[in-house]
Order: sequence, then C-alpha cells, then structure tokens
Amino acid sequence: MDDLRNLFLEALQQETNYLQKELPHHLYAIINGYLQGGGKRLRPCLLLMCAQAAGGDVEKALPAALAVEEFHTWTLIHDDVIDHDDFRRGNPTGHILGCRLGKEAWKLSDNVAADYGVSAAILAGDSLQARATEKLFELKDFQPQTIMSLISNMTGLLTQDLLAGEQLDVEMSHMSWNDVTEDTVMTMINGKTGALLKYCAEAGAALGMDTPIEACPTALQLGQFARNCGIAFQLQDDILGIYGEEAKLGKPIGSDIREGKRTLLACRALAMLSETDAAKLRSILGRADITQDDITTVRNLMNGKPLESVQNDAESYVQTALSCLEMALPASPCRDALHDFAMKMTKRVM
Amino acid sequence: MDDLRNLFLEALQQETNYLQKELPHHLYAIINGYLQGGGKRLRPCLLLMCAQAAGGDVEKALPAALAVEEFHTWTLIHDDVIDHDDFRRGNPTGHILGCRLGKEAWKLSDNVAADYGVSAAILAGDSLQARATEKLFELKDFQPQTIMSLISNMTGLLTQDLLAGEQLDVEMSHMSWNDVTEDTVMTMINGKTGALLKYCAEAGAALGMDTPIEACPTALQLGQFARNCGIAFQLQDDILGIYGEEAKLGKPIGSDIREGKRTLLACRALAMLSETDAAKLRSILGRADITQDDITTVRNLMNGKPLESVQNDAESYVQTALSCLEMALPASPCRDALHDFAMKMTKRVM
Repeated sequence: MDDLRNLFLEALQQETNYLQKELPHHLYAIINGYLQGGGKRLRPCLLLMCAQAAGGDVEKALPAALAVEEFHTWTLIHDDVIDHDDFRRGNPTGHILGCRLGKEAWKLSDNVAADYGVSAAILAGDSLQARATEKLFELKDFQPQTIMSLISNMTGLLTQDLLAGEQLDVEMSHMSWNDVTEDTVMTMINGKTGALLKYCAEAGAALGMDTPIEACPTALQLGQFARNCGIAFQLQDDILGIYGEEAKLGKPIGSDIREGKRTLLACRALAMLSETDAAKLRSILGRADITQDDITTVRNLMNGKPLESVQNDAESYVQTALSCLEMALPASPCRDALHDFAMKMTKRVM
Repeated sequence: MDDLRNLFLEALQQETNYLQKELPHHLYAIINGYLQGGGKRLRPCLLLMCAQAAGGDVEKALPAALAVEEFHTWTLIHDDVIDHDDFRRGNPTGHILGCRLGKEAWKLSDNVAADYGVSAAILAGDSLQARATEKLFELKDFQPQTIMSLISNMTGLLTQDLLAGEQLDVEMSHMSWNDVTEDTVMTMINGKTGALLKYCAEAGAALGMDTPIEACPTALQLGQFARNCGIAFQLQDDILGIYGEEAKLGKPIGSDIREGKRTLLACRALAMLSETDAAKLRSILGRADITQDDITTVRNLMNGKPLESVQNDAESYVQTALSCLEMALPASPCRDALHDFAMKMTKRVM
C-alpha cells in the first residue's frame, strides 16, 4: 500500500499545481490545505489496490484515485462548515482558513471575516465537487462505457447516498435520544462512510477489467467488501472519538461527547445501562460545558458490555468484508493486500 | 418560446416527482421551492430554442433543459446562503425554508433552527449540483461523444467560470470602491451570468447537430450570442435593482443599495459624478440603515449620464449578440425567435 500511496502523492502534487493556476486564490488555498493535509489516503489507495487486484494498470487508474480523494475532500469542507469544526488533522478547516485570509486581504472585522470564511468554504467545496467529476474525463485507454459508468455512479448513487447520510446525521443531532434508533445510525453510517468506500472499490475494479461497474460482478463484490470495511471503519472511529488520544487524532477528545454525536456506541450504552446510569449518560452527552471528569464518567459508563458489543459488531463487519473479498477474487498477493486493508479497520488507533 | 416553456414545465413536473421520491424530505422541499417558484425559465428555453434552430428535436433535448435549470438552481440556493437573502421571487429562500422546517420538526430555538436551515440549504445545493450532471445521462439517441462533451463542459469550464465569478462578487463586496474597476465587474458578470447562458446555447446547438460542442462552430457562435445576451441581461438586472418596482421583481428595492452591490452602474456613476456627488453616493451605498430618501438620492445621482451610458453598453452587448447570431445561422423562424430573445434582455421590467 505504501508504493501506491507514493504514486498517488506524486500525482496529487501535479493536480494541486493545476488547481493553483485555475482557481481563485482563496478557494485554492482552502482546497490545498485539505489535500496536502495528510490523512491516510484510504480511498485512493483502495481504488488503486482494487484496480491492481482486478488485473489493471495502476498508473492508468490515477485520475480516478485523484477524483475520489477530491470527492472525499469537498464533502469534508462542507461537513466542517455544517459541524462548525475549527480543526481537522490539526490544521484549520476551510471556513477558519477563509476567515484568516479575509482578514489579511481586507482587514475585515471578526464577524465579517467569519462570514467570508463560510462563503469561501462553500464555494471551495462546490468547485471541488465539479472538479472530482471532471477529473474522470482524464482517464485514457478505457472504453467510453467504462468511463461513463464511473461518472454516472459518482454524480448519481454515490453523491445522493452520501448526502442522504450527511442530512440524516444533521437531523439526528436534533432528535431526542429516544427517537434515535440503531437502524437510523447504521443507515447514516452506510451513507456517510460506506458509500464512498464502495464506490472506490467498484471504480478501481471496473477500471482494472475495463468494464462498466454494473456489468462487472468483481466490481460489485469488491464494492460490498469495501462498504463493510467502511462501516467497520466508522464504528472504530466512533470508539476512538471516546477512547482515542488527542495527539494522534488531531482533534480534541470530548468533542463527540460535547456534540452528543449519535453513534452506535452511545445508542448501545443507553440501551444496556441501568435507568439511572442511562440518565446520567444522557445528561452529559450534548452538553457544551463538559469537564474532564465528565469525559471520564462517559468512558466508564460505555466501558464493558456496550464497548465490547460494538467492537464485536465492527469485527463482524470485517468478517463479512473478508467473505465478499474471497468471493470476488482468487488468492493472490493483491488479495492479501486487501485482506490487510480490512484488518486495519478495527486495529487502528488514529 | 411559450410552447417550449410549456413543454419544459411538463418535464419539470416529472422531475420534481422523481426528486420527491429520491431525496431526504427537507432537501427536496428546499429544491422544489426554487424549481416550482416560477422564474422566466430563460435558460432551459434558450437551450431548447438553440436545439431547434440547429435542426434538432426539442423533445430529445429535454433532459439537458432540466439539467441547466437544476444547475442554475443549485447556484441560487448557495448564493442566497452567501448573500443572506431571505426571499427570492417572493418565496422564502432555501435556508429560510430549512429554518422553518427545522422548527416544525424538532421545535428548535431560533438560533439552532437558523443554523439547521443553512446546513440543509448547503446540502440541498450539493445534491442538486450532482443531479444536474446526472440528468445529462438521460439524453438518448445522441452519439456518446456529444453527451460526454455536454457533461465535461458542465463539470469543467462552466462550473469553474461560474464559481470564479461568484467568488469575485464576494471579494469585491469587501473591497473599497477605489479598488473596484469596471474590468473586474465585467469579469464577474461574465462568470456569474454569461457562462451559464453560453453553456445553454452551446449544449442546445450541439444536441441539435449531434456533435460535441468543441467540434461544432454553430454551437460556439451561438455560445457567444448567448454570453453577450447574458451580460446585457445582468446590466439590465442591475438597473432594475435601482429603478425597478418591488412588486414585479419579488425582492425589496433598495437591497442592492443597502448591500453596496458592485455594479457597472455604480462604478460608472462614481467615475462620472463630481467629487462632492460621488462622495455622497459612496456614503449611501452599503449602509444598512438607508431611508426612502436615500434611495431617491441614489436614483437621482445615477440618473442622466451614468444610467444612459450603461443602457448604451447593454444595447451594444445585444447588438454584438445579434451579429454572432447572424454568423451562426441562416435566416429562419427559429433565428427570429432567438433575435426576439436577445431584444428582450434590455426591454424587460422584471
């Protein structure tokens, strides 16, 4: 996976050079902050691994790897505006950087600059959404139907599933805990995290076999592999949101608690705890002024059975993913790499 | 044009039925408010007129007519968030409707509901941006290259030009009048209004001749026709923003003055007026607490030479458009209809 990541990073450098020339300066700066801001590059690497596993040439698939990273990035930029998050991976988010740039350029007051930052982040995300699709037109030496299927799946199913998940996330944040069901949480996770990983695997395999996604059983099976990986990834992410280390995650621990984030772990804990403990947990989740003691209380309340059961769920999503993988591909070093990818979903600490 | 508008409106009804089934309810409600909210349907009608003028079948071009209306609409939804506009064509804008829906659904407080409204409007715009592109895949009985050229131009040049114009509009609002040049204003108008009208004409003609846009001289010439119409349209729009009637425009007169909107008319007036009058005008433009007397003062100051010179400019953009039209097409009833379209740009009162 490291070789593929390096290949991707080289191509990314060329892409950001292009964006610097083409986009208004502030929009470029916001986008570049995210694209260069590190991250695990899970999505482009998954796409390239699937292209390779399906017998394709990874170099030829690079425009699609850039497209999915750009797609992921525009959703993050808008997500950060919606969630009022100030930092991501230790860097200022788009609207915060935009705010700073507005102050530098026109000496704006705090309020006006904050408003400018939000505007710039909205437009930067819009611009990158379009660019992600446009990038797919740079795919060469594939049949037109293959490329068309990647484009129509991106602008169709993928975007609509992902945005439905995002909207559900926002809606759930306004529901009382009594109205938040595990089913709703899983639908949200499937859209917000599962849909794009599924697309990455499908697109990679479809390119590897130069066949439209819909007509490529390998692509569809690898899509299910990746979707299940994505769900395991998100369950682990929510566990790290409670038990992770701030320095490794690049975001303040406790923010999920402060926001009362609707997670499977929280639902499970509220369902499993005694009435008294559940009431105590509910009283802390979503409170803006939590203390370090409150964080410890939440950790203790969720520990034991709730945590174990969500960890078990995450493991079984990984197992389902691995079954899909075995159906999709015969044994090979490439399949082993995808096996390792799935195993990392629940083992990671950042 | 009325026949084409009715044909479009029928297809629009089917499209909104589809969106109602597919999208999260609040996102659908926001989008539907704009799509059903009237408006002149200039863009889809222009596309269909150009398809017809280039010898095509308008029924077959309908998905593209819907795509450009949806494209226009997502830019309006995000634009209204950025400009904090509460009404458009007399209807509540997306974030205002979203705010109301949030209150109804979860009894949110005013602040939380306003924040929810903005989130929902951002996601509704994102969703519709993707849908506009996806809609182009419904074009049937055209060569793949023709359809591909419509898609790549939409996600490439069109979106980037339009967003660069939008960003320039936001940036200019923070510049002092001394730094706002006529050139910058014209670049902004070219992007914000010219780019989409150009695309509509290009796409329509390319479909009419079933040829990719780049390989179709008629499409490129009609694109220039439409771009010039778009600029004339915007110059007239800015005149109506000062001299129009509130009831006809569906937005409060004086809002352009209150916001200190950077228009060619304002630039021209500031350049042509005596130092004293220019200072008086500058002191009113952009002030939040203007009175009816201030509006009258601005109208009087801009009247005469500044207004006439911008009206002359608008007329000469129409004349340029008509020259492009004559080069693009031989005389025909369809060309006459496009001629009428151009003439309406500067004659309209709403």
